[in-house]
Amino acid sequence: MRPSNRTPEQNREIKITRHYTDYAEGSVLIEMGNTKVLCNASVSGSVPRFLKGKGKGWVTAEYAMLPRATHIRNMREAAKGKQGGRTLEIQRLIARSLRAAVDLNALGENMITVDCDVIQADGGTRTAAITGGCIALADALNWMVKKGKLKKSPLKQMIAAVSVGIYQGTPVCDLDYAEDSNAETDTNVVMTESGGLIEIQATAEDGAFSHEQLLSMLSLAKGGIEALVVEQKKALNAE
Amino acid sequence: MRPSNRTPEQNREIKITRHYTDYAEGSVLIEMGNTKVLCNASVSGSVPRFLKGKGKGWVTAEYAMLPRATHIRNMREAAKGKQGGRTLEIQRLIARSLRAAVDLNALGENMITVDCDVIQADGGTRTAAITGGCIALADALNWMVKKGKLKKSPLKQMIAAVSVGIYQGTPVCDLDYAEDSNAETDTNVVMTESGGLIEIQATAEDGAFSHEQLLSMLSLAKGGIEALVVEQKKALNAE
Amino acid sequence: MRPSNRTPEQNREIKITRHYTDYAEGSVLIEMGNTKVLCNASVSGSVPRFLKGKGKGWVTAEYAMLPRATHIRNMREAAKGKQGGRTLEIQRLIARSLRAAVDLNALGENMITVDCDVIQADGGTRTAAITGGCIALADALNWMVKKGKLKKSPLKQMIAAVSVGIYQGTPVCDLDYAEDSNAETDTNVVMTESGGLIEIQATAEDGAFSHEQLLSMLSLAKGGIEALVVEQKKALNAE
Amino acid sequence: MRPSNRTPEQNREIKITRHYTDYAEGSVLIEMGNTKVLCNASVSGSVPRFLKGKGKGWVTAEYAMLPRATHIRNMREAAKGKQGGRTLEIQRLIARSLRAAVDLNALGENMITVDCDVIQADGGTRTAAITGGCIALADALNWMVKKGKLKKSPLKQMIAAVSVGIYQGTPVCDLDYAEDSNAETDTNVVMTESGGLIEIQATAEDGAFSHEQLLSMLSLAKGGIEALVVEQKKALNAE
Amino acid sequence: MRPSNRTPEQNREIKITRHYTDYAEGSVLIEMGNTKVLCNASVSGSVPRFLKGKGKGWVTAEYAMLPRATHIRNMREAAKGKQGGRTLEIQRLIARSLRAAVDLNALGENMITVDCDVIQADGGTRTAAITGGCIALADALNWMVKKGKLKKSPLKQMIAAVSVGIYQGTPVCDLDYAEDSNAETDTNVVMTESGGLIEIQATAEDGAFSHEQLLSMLSLAKGGIEALVVEQKKALNAE
Amino acid sequence: MRPSNRTPEQNREIKITRHYTDYAEGSVLIEMGNTKVLCNASVSGSVPRFLKGKGKGWVTAEYAMLPRATHIRNMREAAKGKQGGRTLEIQRLIARSLRAAVDLNALGENMITVDCDVIQADGGTRTAAITGGCIALADALNWMVKKGKLKKSPLKQMIAAVSVGIYQGTPVCDLDYAEDSNAETDTNVVMTESGGLIEIQATAEDGAFSHEQLLSMLSLAKGGIEALVVEQKKALNAE
Repeated sequence: MRPSNRTPEQNREIKITRHYTDYAEGSVLIEMGNTKVLCNASVSGSVPRFLKGKGKGWVTAEYAMLPRATHIRNMREAAKGKQGGRTLEIQRLIARSLRAAVDLNALGENMITVDCDVIQADGGTRTAAITGGCIALADALNWMVKKGKLKKSPLKQMIAAVSVGIYQGTPVCDLDYAEDSNAETDTNVVMTESGGLIEIQATAEDGAFSHEQLLSMLSLAKGGIEALVVEQKKALNAE
Repeated sequence: MRPSNRTPEQNREIKITRHYTDYAEGSVLIEMGNTKVLCNASVSGSVPRFLKGKGKGWVTAEYAMLPRATHIRNMREAAKGKQGGRTLEIQRLIARSLRAAVDLNALGENMITVDCDVIQADGGTRTAAITGGCIALADALNWMVKKGKLKKSPLKQMIAAVSVGIYQGTPVCDLDYAEDSNAETDTNVVMTESGGLIEIQATAEDGAFSHEQLLSMLSLAKGGIEALVVEQKKALNAE
Repeated sequence: MRPSNRTPEQNREIKITRHYTDYAEGSVLIEMGNTKVLCNASVSGSVPRFLKGKGKGWVTAEYAMLPRATHIRNMREAAKGKQGGRTLEIQRLIARSLRAAVDLNALGENMITVDCDVIQADGGTRTAAITGGCIALADALNWMVKKGKLKKSPLKQMIAAVSVGIYQGTPVCDLDYAEDSNAETDTNVVMTESGGLIEIQATAEDGAFSHEQLLSMLSLAKGGIEALVVEQKKALNAE
Repeated sequence: MRPSNRTPEQNREIKITRHYTDYAEGSVLIEMGNTKVLCNASVSGSVPRFLKGKGKGWVTAEYAMLPRATHIRNMREAAKGKQGGRTLEIQRLIARSLRAAVDLNALGENMITVDCDVIQADGGTRTAAITGGCIALADALNWMVKKGKLKKSPLKQMIAAVSVGIYQGTPVCDLDYAEDSNAETDTNVVMTESGGLIEIQATAEDGAFSHEQLLSMLSLAKGGIEALVVEQKKALNAE
Repeated sequence: MRPSNRTPEQNREIKITRHYTDYAEGSVLIEMGNTKVLCNASVSGSVPRFLKGKGKGWVTAEYAMLPRATHIRNMREAAKGKQGGRTLEIQRLIARSLRAAVDLNALGENMITVDCDVIQADGGTRTAAITGGCIALADALNWMVKKGKLKKSPLKQMIAAVSVGIYQGTPVCDLDYAEDSNAETDTNVVMTESGGLIEIQATAEDGAFSHEQLLSMLSLAKGGIEALVVEQKKALNAE
Repeated sequence: MRPSNRTPEQNREIKITRHYTDYAEGSVLIEMGNTKVLCNASVSGSVPRFLKGKGKGWVTAEYAMLPRATHIRNMREAAKGKQGGRTLEIQRLIARSLRAAVDLNALGENMITVDCDVIQADGGTRTAAITGGCIALADALNWMVKKGKLKKSPLKQMIAAVSVGIYQGTPVCDLDYAEDSNAETDTNVVMTESGGLIEIQATAEDGAFSHEQLLSMLSLAKGGIEALVVEQKKALNAE
């Protein structure tokens, strides 16, 4: 029995609010149960130095948790004077994943930065950031088309992500904190809307995991992500 | 005529949402028009080193803007590796102001940290942070009483703040960004619920201001803050 | 009775030494009683990036205390690896104040940096820095005229500053450390030579202050600053 | 055809030199073809703060590349003033992996730090660091037994790692830089000597990868890691 | 002919002002011609961690140049966020030199920090800092005796320092900036009052220097330092 | 009797391995007894800003110790977020010394960075870095000639360095750690192959040293360096 009474393959309730803030070209608040992440996509006309003059665009991401997103207050990274390893690792994952959604050549020399700020954390913040960030990214690309900066959106496909794990011996989908902190294995999976794999990060938390467990987690992830893509599309078509 | 069509003495519409997040002992989203600040108050049983063993408590504050709280994306301070001068100046002001609301001796050796994170900035973020932060602070103190950590709340009084300025020759209350960025003078005023002055920061933006202008701004501020205190109390009594 | 036996409206003895160091275009040691601040104004032909190509100049300031300017040695900020919030807040105030003295358009694309280094601190270092810094600034602008870099000095007016406060119930002018550390309210006032207000920073240190107390402090400040401007002009005319 | 003329399942030549430096309790130079990583394990009697008094030990790791480990000189992280995201991500992976090799309770309140410094980088530095670091770790644990600090080694099992990928459509094992920089997918796999999975990090570099491709990569990784464990054991038994 | 018209063995005019600031236990402004360094010695009752509980004291030093101590303004190290290599190298030299003046065992568990802040730099700032710092150190030790913290001063001997160099083929003593910036060789020598060598740092600026040149520089340094010690003692006996 | 049984004038066994890594233009592992330093010289076509457009080149150096180069693990400087004073002082010495080996005008607008990473430290790491670094530098310059970037090598002369000291009253050459940590005086000497002095850094560790002791140390250093130059040339001619 999961602490939340969900079935093993059941995602938490998802709520997507587009245009959450007024200024960002794409702004999405995604809520996966009690996990709430604000994803703001900003369009810029200048690319990183290594791409200057190559006619190609870039998508990057930043991630942070508000100090009191969690049960215990975490020290603010700006006050500490540096971003921690966990933060850097997560924002690198989000950025790589979102780049897989876009035809960077068709984007031209433009950069989109997706800021993912966790308002409240109840497990699965990085996967929520990817799922919500992709909607903000789609909105920002559509904004560019509307403003005449691009002829058509260079979005190749939606991507979404979910965490899966082995909790008390059973593979479960979309772990909340109560499960995550006690899981034997924790796996983050990023997929395209057509089921292509973009990223898998599987970590044994206590002892090793088996090939069979991996397969069952991947299978759960596939279902969970398909459900998320449905929600993404519903939200994008809602306007 | 103000860009927002308000009368000179009129505050923006204020919206106060208590218990905005689940984990902080006090959590308030304050909205002053389009300015939105999340104020989370966290209780800790340990005080700064200079107060250790003195039987006295402390209230401190931190302030940040999300990178895309504004029209243009600002670089994240955690990524820059330091908090800017504006940030430090503002969070020092918030902390000084909130300490004026509390009997620090009655707080005992406890510390309350009020994190003020700006979700969206349309002028007056620091004064909104003080007004909203004081509600979160009151909630956190009440939480301490409920949990048996204190016999009664050491809250001495509510404090609130508003910005006033001279816009196109006319003194106006609660400036939004359209006014703030064109004001001849910008003054932040912090007062107690009984009208005592806690802090005044008046700055000539273009040329000097006169004694008379100062007086008219202070008079506007008094009215504006009185209206804010009414809203603070309404929110605190709502539960 | 003030610890220094001064009357409430009496400034400390002021001593202004121009050309204190040989290399800076303006170099002033200002002594307000035991407070000693070295103000060096440096002329540069390049402006900050946000002003490049706009034909307009800039005045900025930096502030620091020598580690042993005070009774207790403070850790050197360069060794700590960052400037503290108090330092940044003060140097922002000095810079804003000094910019009010200069016609930035007439300055052309030049920048003047005023370094205010506190040799000894006995209260009122930031206001001494503004009063002395304005003389160094005037000297630097005159140097530019003499060197043919400007046709005439873009100095609009002298500005000066003083701290005033409520000490044992009585408003007093130009607080020294003995008063400052026990004051109920501490207010820094910056004015032009013609009495225009540039900046007011009033802070309740213990309890709130009243409108009447504010007015009496501002009145004292006016007199104190007028006396300082007399000394500024005497010094500038001395050569 | 692989650039190195290896068959798809063939590891590069591995060379393991134990006791490479004199002072570390475990010191291993591991060479996987042209990739050379020095792994030094240091024993310390003090654990991180979160473990103090819990009777449990810890294993951590640090990773760095010498500035000229690569074709182009990289700026030294100590000179930049911070470790980059890639570095932090890698050393977190190494540390997690090595902790899976040790019974931390049996280690008692001791910490082992495994420094992995890349002398030369030709692809696969993180997996080489794990494979070599585990030998250094085993040596350090044996040193603790020899010195009477532990009754028996708390090593539960050897762990080893390899990178696998899809290169020109074909799954290949133990990628060198020529392959890695052109691979369509890059997957790092960490396994125990008995075939349990510890960590999988699979990343699509260009387009998504399929479930089938993942399975074929995991199968290659299993073979590659089994071969590495044979070398680890041969080295450990050599003395 | 030297730019300053001095003879090769002639020091610049030296001026020593004791009790330059009011708060430091030792406070000396030393002027060697146009080079002016403020040396403040601060007494602390706590020693660095590596000396805790060993009954032994420590002497350390910090060095900085005010931004406009030189012809061109240097960026403030506190603003840059770190002390430069030159600064660190110099303050390590000053500290090592001053420790040679004191019996650290007799000092007990006390630390003296000598802050050397360069007000104006015309060459030889580090040697002036050592010569002036030793007087401030002596004053601070005498203060400890007067306050009953020590029975007698643990000063073993005065130490002083001078720079010597080869300027246009001729060895000269106490180089000013005009000479220093054109010298073929630059040597800093630290000696005790009885002629013992404490530190020699000789650097070829342009081509190598010969053994004979070294000997002639050391001979000049001996004379120069003897003259400085006479001035140190005159100053210390003046009270 | 020296701990190593060497005669006072005897260097440790020296081993020079050229082409130690594959990618650096010059790569030398130098071993002086148990001290092992990897010196990698990297050629770059861009010079520091202060030399841009002057047609002149530059040689610089960086120095670091691997965390476990010593008996006790030192914290990694990249993790600490800054290079320590000792590191900066040493790399400045290495860079100055190596610049004395090269005709910087003949180098053209090119920069050579010599990274000196200490694999194992048993005393004399900075002098080993200079001696080994000069070989790597020579190799890098020869590489530039071979690649047609320079007509002939701008190497003026080889330079080498050794540490000498007074150990138990006797001057000895090439101190190892056992001697170095107990020496009364420690002197690092850098010379050209023709015996010219480039740098002398003599430090009294315990009490002062005499002129005679200095002369005897310099005499030992001369012999030691001559022997090192023979080894440098042998290595360079070996290919």
